Amino acid sequence: MKKMHLNGFSQACVGHHSEGQWKNPQYRLDSGYRTMDYWVELARTLERGFFDSLFLADVHGTYNVYQGSNRAAIQHGVQFPAVDPTFLIPAMAGATRHLGLACTYSTTYFPPYHTAKVFSTLDHLTNGRVAWNIVASYLKDAMADFGIQDNLSHDERYERADEYMDVVYKLWEQSWDEDAVVRDIGRDMFTDPDRVHTIHHKGRWFESVTGPHMCEPSSQRTPVLFQAGASGRGVAFAGRHAECVFTVSPTLAAGAKDVKKLRAAAVEAGRDPDDIKINQGLCIIVAPTDELAKLEEQKLRSYASPDGALALFSGWLGMDVSAIPRGEKLDESSTDVAIHSLRGFMQRIDPTRDWTLGAIADYMALGSIFPKVVGSPSTVADEMERWMDEAGMDGFNIHAPTQLSGLTDFVDLVVPELQKRGRLRTAYEGTTLRESFFGAGHKRLSARHPGRGVIGH
Amino acid sequence: MKKMHLNGFSQACVGHHSEGQWKNPQYRLDSGYRTMDYWVELARTLERGFFDSLFLADVHGTYNVYQGSNRAAIQHGVQFPAVDPTFLIPAMAGATRHLGLACTYSTTYFPPYHTAKVFSTLDHLTNGRVAWNIVASYLKDAMADFGIQDNLSHDERYERADEYMDVVYKLWEQSWDEDAVVRDIGRDMFTDPDRVHTIHHKGRWFESVTGPHMCEPSSQRTPVLFQAGASGRGVAFAGRHAECVFTVSPTLAAGAKDVKKLRAAAVEAGRDPDDIKINQGLCIIVAPTDELAKLEEQKLRSYASPDGALALFSGWLGMDVSAIPRGEKLDESSTDVAIHSLRGFMQRIDPTRDWTLGAIADYMALGSIFPKVVGSPSTVADEMERWMDEAGMDGFNIHAPTQLSGLTDFVDLVVPELQKRGRLRTAYEGTTLRESFFGAGHKRLSARHPGRGVIGH
Repeated sequence: MKKMHLNGFSQACVGHHSEGQWKNPQYRLDSGYRTMDYWVELARTLERGFFDSLFLADVHGTYNVYQGSNRAAIQHGVQFPAVDPTFLIPAMAGATRHLGLACTYSTTYFPPYHTAKVFSTLDHLTNGRVAWNIVASYLKDAMADFGIQDNLSHDERYERADEYMDVVYKLWEQSWDEDAVVRDIGRDMFTDPDRVHTIHHKGRWFESVTGPHMCEPSSQRTPVLFQAGASGRGVAFAGRHAECVFTVSPTLAAGAKDVKKLRAAAVEAGRDPDDIKINQGLCIIVAPTDELAKLEEQKLRSYASPDGALALFSGWLGMDVSAIPRGEKLDESSTDVAIHSLRGFMQRIDPTRDWTLGAIADYMALGSIFPKVVGSPSTVADEMERWMDEAGMDGFNIHAPTQLSGLTDFVDLVVPELQKRGRLRTAYEGTTLRESFFGAGHKRLSARHPGRGVIGH
Repeated sequence: MKKMHLNGFSQACVGHHSEGQWKNPQYRLDSGYRTMDYWVELARTLERGFFDSLFLADVHGTYNVYQGSNRAAIQHGVQFPAVDPTFLIPAMAGATRHLGLACTYSTTYFPPYHTAKVFSTLDHLTNGRVAWNIVASYLKDAMADFGIQDNLSHDERYERADEYMDVVYKLWEQSWDEDAVVRDIGRDMFTDPDRVHTIHHKGRWFESVTGPHMCEPSSQRTPVLFQAGASGRGVAFAGRHAECVFTVSPTLAAGAKDVKKLRAAAVEAGRDPDDIKINQGLCIIVAPTDELAKLEEQKLRSYASPDGALALFSGWLGMDVSAIPRGEKLDESSTDVAIHSLRGFMQRIDPTRDWTLGAIADYMALGSIFPKVVGSPSTVADEMERWMDEAGMDGFNIHAPTQLSGLTDFVDLVVPELQKRGRLRTAYEGTTLRESFFGAGHKRLSARHPGRGVIGH
């Protein structure tokens, strides 16, 4: 029976995919997000639950589409204020031994030479437990703040991202020979200069990156490569680069299709279908019984901020939905682009419902677009098994509306159930994050991965 | 009697200002620099010694002037390999309660919007114990690696740096009102949008930075501002911006002049002379007696790598000194530019010596250009008191060739002597780093500091 991978999902900000929960006395992310103690406790909790990783999202800029301003996002703490999540990794690394620590880092804002140094540093400090979630950014106001003019077309953006990856692969995989640090006292030689190489990258987007890489090889060399999103050109990118993909497929049937597309893309890129671990995002509310879980959901809904949810959702869609009347059913025959595409989006989540904007806001306010799983440990485990067996998922990205108590509940209640069913490890496979995903001994990028194959110096 | 400030000096790399010590079995930085345990032990040691801060230098790129290549720098581990020091700060923050954690961050490589987020994050995670050492970078090969073309004139560089500071001040000091986070459950309002402000910076070097700042106010808001270097336009910059300056004055007399210049520059910028704490760099080798300290120095010299020292020094000077014969006295009447300026530099350190390149390499290999203090705790304390009383220094930046045992020796041997003389605190003044430098209650930038005075939104 295939065992599952588990990743905890969070972000270093006040409100993260469940807007309004800061009013819930059990919710601690709103003040904890900027303290060491919070993150250390979360990391220890996830490691106790044998999670593969904690996955930290990040955003630059504010959500300012809804009502044409960022006021709703600010009022409701929609991923704002925030701190830089990369700095939480060393704080958590000292308190854990196995948990992977994954972080979003943008190819839009940081040059590849810098990104390579950041993740090599983190891989050293964590002894090989770091992952990089590769994203290109999209909030225009933050780009201006960074001094970036981005007029790239969709294709150019992916072409640039591919070249970006080539540069970091050269720095991580090619710049240092394995045995470059010789510590030869007789020759007064710490590092052998013949075994450290400039990379001489010259490309369209990165004109001249010479190196050498500032960091000696870490346990994993290349961090475990995460990617989220699974549409169009993004799938081809994932097929080539990602070792771990996060999907938010709206239904089991859609999930099965997404899994198939991603594995085909891996094969297309010369890799094995299982070289990508696919993790479905789920919003989980668990309690000892189904009834208690439903009560908990009701309680969480009483704290929700629908306006905050719509501020986030409008930002993602790039479309101000605030003018749509809350109570009216979205008209199938409407010629309004906003209504049309909103209806299409929600139909994929549940085609049987007559969606209104009010219903959408309520739905989104708990776990945004993540499918919701509410129930007893056995109900939750059943649903997770279906995502594995029917959709072919390898694992999950778990969001809990109440952070961190919702994740503690998951570890206390669902994890033992999953272990009982033989679905979850009872010991970690190795010492690095890549070994958690791919088995003991797999510390480095697979030989099939294109990061190992770029033409060297 | 004026108490002194103490800062420990290090860098997250193999060799730091004392090249070749990796061969010394007591030296641990060469493997420790990329581990959590090393930095945690160092931070605890310095806090036990009531240091104000640990100050971490940083460099991007390799030293490649000497012999026209970076081979000597690579061979001898001259600040290479290295990791990104900012990530050591959260690792150390969890293990200490008072020690300040200071880090170099370059205005050349990172946009001000990003730098503001980084230091706000670190100030939150450390509860107000972070400092930023402001530098503009100078290694050309690293600039290309970062995709930066830098053709700025000397004056333009400082003009850009001044505008950079204006942007970060606006983000740290003006973007968030003190009471912006209201947590008003009745109004369903976490943050009051009327109390968070865009900054609308439009300038020559930073065309359009709008904000708002992503981070709510931290304990210090603006990190404690460090600067190193004290010549020409740099002094004016320090007079305006720095709260803490690191000098490497070659002699007491030169130190007295540097102190005078810096305090005058503070007054020129509308601040008080004592608004800048001036810390002299010293390379300290201490042992129970003067004789044992001299023996220790001899031992350290036996591990030194003169070629490594010259690789570093050539990089600083921007001048390849490798062709100068090692044993010949530098000729006063030489018309060779390299010899002329090298001789001038060394004359300032000791005008009574007939410097040869060999002697320079030996001198530099222990603590580079830092004045050396070798002796018993009482000898070292005497010398430190002279730097305070005769040169007017406020404190010190301590380099020990053997890291970290040299700093442990300082804490065990010299700190009690300084406390006995009433020169060093026996308890920390407050909870933040700024209070360590300026007294209890001074958590924020002084009202006299220009960072408080920039024109608001």
